[in-house]
Amino acid sequence: MGSSQARVRNSPNDVGTYLTVAAEDMKTIYLDHNATTPIRPEVLEAMMPFLKDEFGNPSSLHQLGQKSRKAVEEARAKLAAFIGADDPNEIIFTSGGTESDNLAIKGTAVARGKPLSKVTTSTVEHSAVRRVLFQLEKSGWCQVSKIPVTSAGCLDKSARETHLSPDTDLVTLMLVNNETGVIQPVEEIFIAAREKGVTIHTDAVQAAGRIPIDVNQLGVDLLSLSGHKLGAPKGIGILYVRKGTRLEALIHGGSQEKNRRGGTENVAAIVGLGVAADLAREELSAAPRRIEPLRNLLEKEILSQIPKTAVNGAGATRVCNTTNILFEFTDNTQMVMALDMKGISVSNGSACASGNPEPSHVLLAMGLPQDKAHASIRFSLGSDTTKEDIETAIPLIVTTVQQIRSNHPLWKEK
Amino acid sequence: MGSSQARVRNSPNDVGTYLTVAAEDMKTIYLDHNATTPIRPEVLEAMMPFLKDEFGNPSSLHQLGQKSRKAVEEARAKLAAFIGADDPNEIIFTSGGTESDNLAIKGTAVARGKPLSKVTTSTVEHSAVRRVLFQLEKSGWCQVSKIPVTSAGCLDKSARETHLSPDTDLVTLMLVNNETGVIQPVEEIFIAAREKGVTIHTDAVQAAGRIPIDVNQLGVDLLSLSGHKLGAPKGIGILYVRKGTRLEALIHGGSQEKNRRGGTENVAAIVGLGVAADLAREELSAAPRRIEPLRNLLEKEILSQIPKTAVNGAGATRVCNTTNILFEFTDNTQMVMALDMKGISVSNGSACASGNPEPSHVLLAMGLPQDKAHASIRFSLGSDTTKEDIETAIPLIVTTVQQIRSNHPLWKEK
Repeated sequence: MGSSQARVRNSPNDVGTYLTVAAEDMKTIYLDHNATTPIRPEVLEAMMPFLKDEFGNPSSLHQLGQKSRKAVEEARAKLAAFIGADDPNEIIFTSGGTESDNLAIKGTAVARGKPLSKVTTSTVEHSAVRRVLFQLEKSGWCQVSKIPVTSAGCLDKSARETHLSPDTDLVTLMLVNNETGVIQPVEEIFIAAREKGVTIHTDAVQAAGRIPIDVNQLGVDLLSLSGHKLGAPKGIGILYVRKGTRLEALIHGGSQEKNRRGGTENVAAIVGLGVAADLAREELSAAPRRIEPLRNLLEKEILSQIPKTAVNGAGATRVCNTTNILFEFTDNTQMVMALDMKGISVSNGSACASGNPEPSHVLLAMGLPQDKAHASIRFSLGSDTTKEDIETAIPLIVTTVQQIRSNHPLWKEK
Repeated sequence: MGSSQARVRNSPNDVGTYLTVAAEDMKTIYLDHNATTPIRPEVLEAMMPFLKDEFGNPSSLHQLGQKSRKAVEEARAKLAAFIGADDPNEIIFTSGGTESDNLAIKGTAVARGKPLSKVTTSTVEHSAVRRVLFQLEKSGWCQVSKIPVTSAGCLDKSARETHLSPDTDLVTLMLVNNETGVIQPVEEIFIAAREKGVTIHTDAVQAAGRIPIDVNQLGVDLLSLSGHKLGAPKGIGILYVRKGTRLEALIHGGSQEKNRRGGTENVAAIVGLGVAADLAREELSAAPRRIEPLRNLLEKEILSQIPKTAVNGAGATRVCNTTNILFEFTDNTQMVMALDMKGISVSNGSACASGNPEPSHVLLAMGLPQDKAHASIRFSLGSDTTKEDIETAIPLIVTTVQQIRSNHPLWKEK
């Protein structure tokens, strides 16, 4: 225990003694659903038997194994229905969105047996795509061409065509940006890519449950989803692989997932993801209708009550639950911690990069200067967010910004 | 649901209508712990808060995130203690043993930036090592040299030196065979490899909780463990990476696991694995003392009551819980199903290959002919196995063998 404590203190995410002073019994207003979501009660309930008595290995021939097999295949069908896949066999279960992105991109590269000529992506992808492409480019496996975004965070349509050349092998573009909630206008470039026979991948992790996803309407060959952004547990995700798509496994081993992903299936989490997908499908029209007004209320009150604020991505079509707000003359790490002390959980960017002192690459790509990128906060609502949460949060946000600005040298000069 | 049902019927592991006739209320005697183990109650209890209220992303700066971070780091220290690692930072959490094996081997290959000259392995490795090496060899990344085994399933010491040449880059050998339970005599070859500066990996998945594991005593650089073979859930494992070992990530993305494994940490499962490791460490001397006599009783009664039987690997030192028994003039798929009908869960080999009609590569490597490999059954006991289980199972096994042999054409001739 001693050495683990030491380890915690050495963590890049260390917040020192700060943890010890925050009130333990305060009700948390969780506005960080793009980082992760609580497991929905229906999901956990469905998982429990598979964490207890139904523990068989789906590859085992005996009944205990075959019950697990059946549960996995039922979940597979639910995922297929959720994204409009023609065949449940087009769904591969992985350990999460990051593995799915890795499998999609590296699996396409390796399946070709030669370096990819060219991969088209954008400047605002999640690190699970960016880092993979960086790594492949570094190793000489591909040349990456990045479509820029407008100041609103949208793919720049004017620049688009120049990024799709006759030798493009793969297009990988996210559906919804994790930091701004911007819904990317991918339709036309996907159509153009399809006409050229280019393999198309989309990271749909932040789209799931917020906008309809239909793999045939999108015309994609590969699509990544993550469970824990959708009310399912951490450690589970899928990669949709359209029939006929050439893809080499990333994790070789047993013949699980039709030889496309070795390793004993994470049965309980798979079952949970199936239920979460069903719930998200059922609620897809109602959930945004409930959440969007709450997000809009939060935005409207912050912008009207606090001077020198702006919504990053305001000029774009966005998903219902996300707002990324610039609070000039603040520091977003200070803001996250001060709001947390008042019981409000928010984020200073992508959770996957929050230990990173670099400013958000997404906001920089939208043309924000470094100081404004460092002064922007992401609020992301979820199925458990109430109007009371938002009404409680607003005055706390107002006073927090005032407090932080009161210590900001440039604000004082104003 | 309709299409998922169809999918189940098309599964390679399909057992047709057989499932519907087995008695639902029969108590199962589970003797397939090498395929997977039930989650131990203490493990599930520790996991539950992280499946409910403590759902934060460990990368989030707020308290909810930092509570998850702390839990992950505490579990990391437990895993380090379990395998005698000097530093918890030498532990990387993965999605399981298969991913760990892939990360170890591919990560070593890619980190060198050039094809590996030579990898030394054995003829009896798990598919998570075999298939990775097969894939790398096919792509021109390595030349594989396989140490054969004796008829008892032990690494053949006489052949060993010829498989370790001056240009060997990596040695990957399992500690305990999953099918026979044979403890491999790896010490000398690991010492020889270490003297030559060769990177050493061991798949210790089936050793965990059965024999002591000490990475310094073994002298390994890389060691794979799986949670679900140890009373922790499916979907979690570790790779031990000795400080200073060159290893490229397999899954790139966020900076989790110190940039060696991207993707949001599977917090609940990690916490569970920590508890399972602690339990296994506490029970390491007592558990074998309890389980081994039960395994020996099972073997002794089968061998004395049923003619034409033999223990595969009997001549080797084996772990306490496993016995692989040849029942001549039977078919092991029939045996698994018939025993299952009587409430006894066993395996016809590695669960990861049980959908595979090929005979066990392990038994073939030990010199068994195909028909005998196809007539061999693995029984693997666990912490929940009782003497009553074994005493109940023995007469059921005897009658099952009699029934199957009565329909066997060659047995009838005898």
